[in-house]
Amino acid sequence: MTVRHFIDTQDLTKAEVLDIVQLGLTLKRCVEVGYFPPLLHGRTLGMIFEQSSTRTRVSFETAMAQLGGHAQYLAPGQIQLGGHESIEDTARVLSRLVDVVMARVARHHTVAELAEHATIPVLNGMSDYNHPTQEIGDLITMVEHLPAGKRLEDCKVVFVGDATQVCASLMMITTKMGMDFVQFGPEAFQLKESMQAIGRDNCVVSGGSVFVTDDPHKALEGADFVYTDVWYGDYEAELGEAERLAAFMPKYQVNPELMALASPDAKFMHCLPATRGEEVTDAVLDGPASIAFEEAGNRLTAQRALLVYFLRPELANPVKVEAAKAELASVLAGIL
Amino acid sequence: MTVRHFIDTQDLTKAEVLDIVQLGLTLKRCVEVGYFPPLLHGRTLGMIFEQSSTRTRVSFETAMAQLGGHAQYLAPGQIQLGGHESIEDTARVLSRLVDVVMARVARHHTVAELAEHATIPVLNGMSDYNHPTQEIGDLITMVEHLPAGKRLEDCKVVFVGDATQVCASLMMITTKMGMDFVQFGPEAFQLKESMQAIGRDNCVVSGGSVFVTDDPHKALEGADFVYTDVWYGDYEAELGEAERLAAFMPKYQVNPELMALASPDAKFMHCLPATRGEEVTDAVLDGPASIAFEEAGNRLTAQRALLVYFLRPELANPVKVEAAKAELASVLAGIL
Amino acid sequence: MTVRHFIDTQDLTKAEVLDIVQLGLTLKRCVEVGYFPPLLHGRTLGMIFEQSSTRTRVSFETAMAQLGGHAQYLAPGQIQLGGHESIEDTARVLSRLVDVVMARVARHHTVAELAEHATIPVLNGMSDYNHPTQEIGDLITMVEHLPAGKRLEDCKVVFVGDATQVCASLMMITTKMGMDFVQFGPEAFQLKESMQAIGRDNCVVSGGSVFVTDDPHKALEGADFVYTDVWYGDYEAELGEAERLAAFMPKYQVNPELMALASPDAKFMHCLPATRGEEVTDAVLDGPASIAFEEAGNRLTAQRALLVYFLRPELANPVKVEAAKAELASVLAGIL
Repeated sequence: MTVRHFIDTQDLTKAEVLDIVQLGLTLKRCVEVGYFPPLLHGRTLGMIFEQSSTRTRVSFETAMAQLGGHAQYLAPGQIQLGGHESIEDTARVLSRLVDVVMARVARHHTVAELAEHATIPVLNGMSDYNHPTQEIGDLITMVEHLPAGKRLEDCKVVFVGDATQVCASLMMITTKMGMDFVQFGPEAFQLKESMQAIGRDNCVVSGGSVFVTDDPHKALEGADFVYTDVWYGDYEAELGEAERLAAFMPKYQVNPELMALASPDAKFMHCLPATRGEEVTDAVLDGPASIAFEEAGNRLTAQRALLVYFLRPELANPVKVEAAKAELASVLAGIL
Repeated sequence: MTVRHFIDTQDLTKAEVLDIVQLGLTLKRCVEVGYFPPLLHGRTLGMIFEQSSTRTRVSFETAMAQLGGHAQYLAPGQIQLGGHESIEDTARVLSRLVDVVMARVARHHTVAELAEHATIPVLNGMSDYNHPTQEIGDLITMVEHLPAGKRLEDCKVVFVGDATQVCASLMMITTKMGMDFVQFGPEAFQLKESMQAIGRDNCVVSGGSVFVTDDPHKALEGADFVYTDVWYGDYEAELGEAERLAAFMPKYQVNPELMALASPDAKFMHCLPATRGEEVTDAVLDGPASIAFEEAGNRLTAQRALLVYFLRPELANPVKVEAAKAELASVLAGIL
Repeated sequence: MTVRHFIDTQDLTKAEVLDIVQLGLTLKRCVEVGYFPPLLHGRTLGMIFEQSSTRTRVSFETAMAQLGGHAQYLAPGQIQLGGHESIEDTARVLSRLVDVVMARVARHHTVAELAEHATIPVLNGMSDYNHPTQEIGDLITMVEHLPAGKRLEDCKVVFVGDATQVCASLMMITTKMGMDFVQFGPEAFQLKESMQAIGRDNCVVSGGSVFVTDDPHKALEGADFVYTDVWYGDYEAELGEAERLAAFMPKYQVNPELMALASPDAKFMHCLPATRGEEVTDAVLDGPASIAFEEAGNRLTAQRALLVYFLRPELANPVKVEAAKAELASVLAGIL
């Protein structure tokens, strides 16, 4: 059986995404009533982090624990990856010591190489190209907050600001689902043509649309979800404050005035962390339209579903288990 | 239901402290006979550390594991707290990703702000003001070593040396319980008047007493427990060796001569780590009166009880659990 | 009962090693069929690391989780060891907060002192002297790849290159088992006479042999297992590239030409990480004779067995457990 990875938001079909969303919502209800299904009993997740992280790290570690498994946090510099050991060899070794790997990497090629050489599933916990697990949580959050009478396919999602990896991933997942996606951003910070082409290809299949503009009225009109991200860009090469304010302020700040251009029931989303007072004001982030903190909570909803979906836990064979138990009992009796 | 926190030794009433002590002693007996009650099954503790720690970190992590839960170690710089993300937003996000937070912080306002914005319990794992979880373990240790025929309320506890956050917390818990508390320290390193006032207020209710002096005979006479802490002070602004020796040596060193001034059955306590040869000599720390290492072991006794007490695990509703199980089985059958 | 430690490859008798190998193989079969025996339920391993590690850290943490326990990763600088607290005091404190300690240390005396003062088992996760847990995994790997018709005692093991701590440990375990051991290395990088003497002493009992040479033909002839390690030496004082190439290249590189001098069925082993193109070429490390990645996987096989063997889990006393359960239920009813 070929091992599947989730390193690119495009890796899953629409039907697969919907299965994972359903699984996520079901597992969320289980945990809410105090039932922790032991689907990942005995399984271990290796989490490689090249950068600091709150939501991704904590949500994956909690998800494994809630489902009976365990997550190992492999912090920057704690393993030999990139130091004494190549990515390829690290992938081959970890494939024999854990059951699934999650990696947050500075550069996308690192997680792609891990996946190429691993014989276990590799999940991308964010790279400079992509943030696929974020998008499963975002979609779950939108499903939980669909405008009355609308299906996902009827919704318009507007990303405001810099074309970060979250913007790119959001464009991919929404167009894959058949939604209307708009990026509202200044010309120098818009999604590259090659990225937009991915979205357009999705739309041919799904019936959605992708549109990039610096016109706030065209962008926001009829928007069901208004989404933003920080302006400082790539963690490895952050824009200074003066530079980013010059580029985005005040036109691209999500404040009550901008929200007023969207649908009256529009919800506000943010992958967090937020730089309050820059890309979003307190009035919006803490206001009644904000579902940004629920969205953060749904990182956990998404990770539970992804881990179960990609690990595909199989039922143990009772006959083989009985034989193994008997052998172990006899060996222990002999030596302990 | 309002969420309760434990960020200040004063947060609990005497009756509540006694309940927690009893729960701690009971859980200790469970573990000693090889029974690990799964009271925290499926629950996750997020442990934020701004400083290094041995006892606090290891005891909390072991306690969660023994009770069926899991603790995440969030080391300095590993999460976005104080970097890209505000304390308030971190509190709101973690409240949705874990079940309880423990924080060791350089400055007390950090843990206070976390508690203010969290919707889950926050436990203070030490701040520059306070070390409340330490005191639950200290009290349990004293209960296990009560002088023959004495109740807690009959005991005299003497803290020798610098008015550290442990000294302050010990003063609070002992006066809350109705014990007699003395700090024996040089004038420049005595508990501030505002701190002593907290102790005096406790004594009005409890019948205990609080007294600060630089007279060794008055301090130690009749002492049942002699307690000390390091002389270098706050981790963020440590006193140099010359400076601290000039301030405390030799008068405030706990050595056999000083112990001889206390009750013949007096026990020696220390929150550890110790700087052997400074605030305490080997003869005392390793001698027959020392219960300092048992005290370290009771950090674990305390954390188990505190986690159960503040998480207040409720029995799952069997009907809801059965419904959730059935839904999950049907979803899994469809997609795996 | 005296607590036993595993800080030196010499700490175990041949019979004990064979018991642990058998236990490891049995537990491996259990996990392979999806049975995770809860032998270490409720138990905690404290893992002290003074250096970065992939295989040792991940394998110990996975092993504990698979057997129902939990491993804590205590990274450099995260606990007070060697900073504010002595090794001795750290050992005494950890003995009360966890059930077993594993330590990877820069200098061997650190793990030796930990073991001297701990009242729980201490396992050496590698020091500059020794890497005993590596050798249990190596031996298991050799057992799984015995040449047709040969017993362990009939095999010849050749270590090529620098007399690292892995070379030393391999010499100890093979001579203890009665195998023929050869180090093939340049004079300045050969096992010290005092080390060789340990091997010769083993051979008196076991019937094995130990031989050190810089002659490739004498070394490799009839070799069943060819093993190498990196050339940069001690992590704390690594040899520069020019220096190490001058010392070992090309004579001591394991390439197809060198492998051709060994037995036709010879297997290639490496403790990893490898510096590809230095001590081993891709053609060998990725070739059909290489069992180096299986060997890495058997670190996990070894750790499971060692943890069970040294923790010697005892069955809980049902009567005492019932009494503890009843007491806990009554206490909880009163206070929650």
